[in-house]
Amino acid sequence: MSSKVAIVGVGCTKVGEHWDKSLRQLFLEASLKALEEADVDRVDAIYVGNMASATINFQQHLGALMADVMGMRGVDAVRVEAADASGSAAVHQAYMAIKSGQAQTVLVGGVEKLTDARPADVEYAAMMSERSEYVVYSGITIAGLNAIQTQLYMDRFNARYEDIVNFAVNDHRNAAGNPYAQFPFPITVERVLESPPVADPIRLFDTTAPADGAAALVLCPLETAKKLCDTPVVIEASVLATDGVNPYERDDVLTLTSTRVAAERAYRTAGITPRDVDVVEVHNTSSIMGVLALEDLGFVEKGQGWRFVAEGQIALNADLPTNTLGGLKARGHPWGATGVYQLVELTWQLRGEAGGNQVDGAEIGLAQSVGGLGATTVVHILRRWH
Amino acid sequence: MSSKVAIVGVGCTKVGEHWDKSLRQLFLEASLKALEEADVDRVDAIYVGNMASATINFQQHLGALMADVMGMRGVDAVRVEAADASGSAAVHQAYMAIKSGQAQTVLVGGVEKLTDARPADVEYAAMMSERSEYVVYSGITIAGLNAIQTQLYMDRFNARYEDIVNFAVNDHRNAAGNPYAQFPFPITVERVLESPPVADPIRLFDTTAPADGAAALVLCPLETAKKLCDTPVVIEASVLATDGVNPYERDDVLTLTSTRVAAERAYRTAGITPRDVDVVEVHNTSSIMGVLALEDLGFVEKGQGWRFVAEGQIALNADLPTNTLGGLKARGHPWGATGVYQLVELTWQLRGEAGGNQVDGAEIGLAQSVGGLGATTVVHILRRWH
Repeated sequence: MSSKVAIVGVGCTKVGEHWDKSLRQLFLEASLKALEEADVDRVDAIYVGNMASATINFQQHLGALMADVMGMRGVDAVRVEAADASGSAAVHQAYMAIKSGQAQTVLVGGVEKLTDARPADVEYAAMMSERSEYVVYSGITIAGLNAIQTQLYMDRFNARYEDIVNFAVNDHRNAAGNPYAQFPFPITVERVLESPPVADPIRLFDTTAPADGAAALVLCPLETAKKLCDTPVVIEASVLATDGVNPYERDDVLTLTSTRVAAERAYRTAGITPRDVDVVEVHNTSSIMGVLALEDLGFVEKGQGWRFVAEGQIALNADLPTNTLGGLKARGHPWGATGVYQLVELTWQLRGEAGGNQVDGAEIGLAQSVGGLGATTVVHILRRWH
Repeated sequence: MSSKVAIVGVGCTKVGEHWDKSLRQLFLEASLKALEEADVDRVDAIYVGNMASATINFQQHLGALMADVMGMRGVDAVRVEAADASGSAAVHQAYMAIKSGQAQTVLVGGVEKLTDARPADVEYAAMMSERSEYVVYSGITIAGLNAIQTQLYMDRFNARYEDIVNFAVNDHRNAAGNPYAQFPFPITVERVLESPPVADPIRLFDTTAPADGAAALVLCPLETAKKLCDTPVVIEASVLATDGVNPYERDDVLTLTSTRVAAERAYRTAGITPRDVDVVEVHNTSSIMGVLALEDLGFVEKGQGWRFVAEGQIALNADLPTNTLGGLKARGHPWGATGVYQLVELTWQLRGEAGGNQVDGAEIGLAQSVGGLGATTVVHILRRWH
C-alpha cells in the first residue's frame, strides 16, 4: 500500500472531429503516448472514463474492449461513468486502486466520440446527466440550464453578461497556444456577444461544441515513479462529492455544493489552502459555470467571480492562471475525456512543459471536473515532486 | 487501511417485471434493506452497478442520482459498467475503496430495469457487451453465440444437449424455494427440450429473460463489522480479469480465459483451492456458460462439466451446490444487478439464512460474474467469519 500516487506519463489526442478514427483508435492513440512517456508496456489495471458510448457509439463494455485493443488481455479493466465527470471519476478509482495495493501501475483513459451523431442525439445524451423525467421530456438543454443560472447571477450580483463571458475569451486566448485544442484561436467579447443566441442570454461562443477526443494518464506509487521519471507529479488529493441532481431542488442554484464539499476535503487532504494553488482547471460548460467554480473552490467570494474574471485575474500571467490550455470552451469538451485532459494539462504545467502557455514556477495545480450541472464534482490537487 | 473487507448488510428486490417501480425505487428498496440490516444510515461512498440505463431508461449519472434518492447528497458516488458484470465490478471497486482507506462504509447496489423496453431494444442493448461492429450489425444474439458454443461443445466432448440443460433444471429447482426469484418453479429436461427453439440447439427454457431488479450490499472493514453484526461475511478475494472481446478471436471459444485468470488469482489471494469451496454462484446466460464456468473455475476438468451437471453434482445436497437460489436462469438476470444478487445469496448461505435451500455447514462461497461472453470475469470468494 502506497502513501502517495504519482503521474508518470500523460498523452492526448487533438480535440475535434475525428471522423477517420474510432472510439478505440482515439483511446489507443492517447494511451500509447502516456505509456511511452512512462516507459511502461503493461499495467495492472485500466480505467476508462466515458459518458455516452452506449447512446452515441452503440458500444459498452469499454474496460474489456480497451484492454483488448491495448494488447493487455487479462488485466483488470472497467468503465466508470459520472456523466461528463466520467474521466476524473475514473482517475479517482485508479487512484484508489493503487492506494489499496491491488494495482501497482494503472492506465486511466477518458474517451468520447460525439461528432458522428446527429446533434439532437448528442443533446439527448447530454441531458441524461440530469434527471431525465424532468429535463429530457421538458426539452431544456444544458445551455438552457446555464442560461437560467446566468440570468439569476446577473440579477443577484448586478453583473453584466459582457463581463461574465470574459471566461470564454480567456479560454480561447489560451487555446491559441495549444496544438491539441479544438478551437485554437482568440476571440473577443464583441465576437461572443455578436454570435447567435443559443439560450438567452447565452451566445454560441459561450458554449461548448460536440467533440471527439481521448486523454490518458499512467499512475503508480510515488516510490516507483521516482525510478521511472525525473519529474513525477503527485496526486495530493482525489475527492469526489455529489449533490442533488435537480438544480432547482438545491438550496441555491448559484452554489455548486458538490464543488465546495469536494474542494474542502481536497484542501484538507493536501494540507493546502486555495492561496497555495498556482494553476487551475475548471469545468466551464458555459462562462457561468467557470465563474461559479472559482467562487465555490474558494478562490474568490460568492458574487465576485465575474469581477475577478473581467479584471483579467485568470490570465496566464495574472493571479490565478485558469484553463491555461483552453478549458472546456476552446481546448474542447469531449465529455468523458475532459476530466483527464485537465490532469494531462496540469501535469504539463507542473513539469514546466506547457510551452508558450507555461505558468512560471507552477508547483501546485487544482482541477475541478463536474458532472451535469454539479450533481458530481471531482477535485484533484497535483503537486510537482522535487 | 484495512486488511479485510466484510459484508454487514444485504438486500434485494424480487426479480421480475416491476412496471410500478422506477430504476430509482428498485435501487432504494434493495439498498434500504441492506442499510437496515447493517444498522447504518449513512455511508462514505455509493457504487452503482448498471449496464443499460442509457439505452433502456434514458438516464445516466446513476451515482449522483442514487446518492440523492438515498438522501445522502455529498457522498462519493459513481456508476461502474462492465456489461452484465457491472454489479460485481462495482463491488470490486467498493472493495478497493475500503482497502485504500478512502472510505469506511460503502453501499454497493446493482440495478437494472429492462422490461419496459421493446424486446428488440433489450437485445440491442445486450449486444453492446460484445464488439458492436461485428455482432450488432450481423444480427447475432447472446443466445446465438451461446448456441455456437453449445454445438461446438457437444461435438468436441461428445456431450448431448439433454445432459447440458440439466444446468437450467437445477436452477429452476433451486429457485422454487426463493421468494425473490423470477421463475420460482421446477422444470424438467423434457420441458426444456419441448420449449421453442431460440437459436439451435438452445431452447427457450435454456435462456434468461429480460428482468428488473436490484440488489445491494453494505461493506466495511472487518474490525468495524465485528461490532456491527454477529455474522460478518469476509470478502477474501475480489478479482477482475479481462479477455478478448470477440469470442472467435480467442484461443478457444470453449475456454473462459478471464474466468481462469480471475479464479487463479482469487484462490491464491484467499489461500484456498477449488476443493475448499462449499457453495458456488456462476454466470449461466445459458447452460453452456454454466458448464464452462465450472470447468474454468477448476471444479471439474475441461470437457467433463456436462457429465458433472448431468450426474446431479451441482444439486443442493451434492458435491458442489451451485446457483443455490436459482442462478441466472431462474432467480433471473437483471444484468447490472446480477453480480450483486450472487453475493447477497452467498451471504445468506454463509450466515445460514438460506432457509429450505441452505447448504449445511457452508463456510466458503465463490461467485463468478461474467460480462458478455467472457470478456470480463469478476470472481469473489467469501468466507463466514467466526
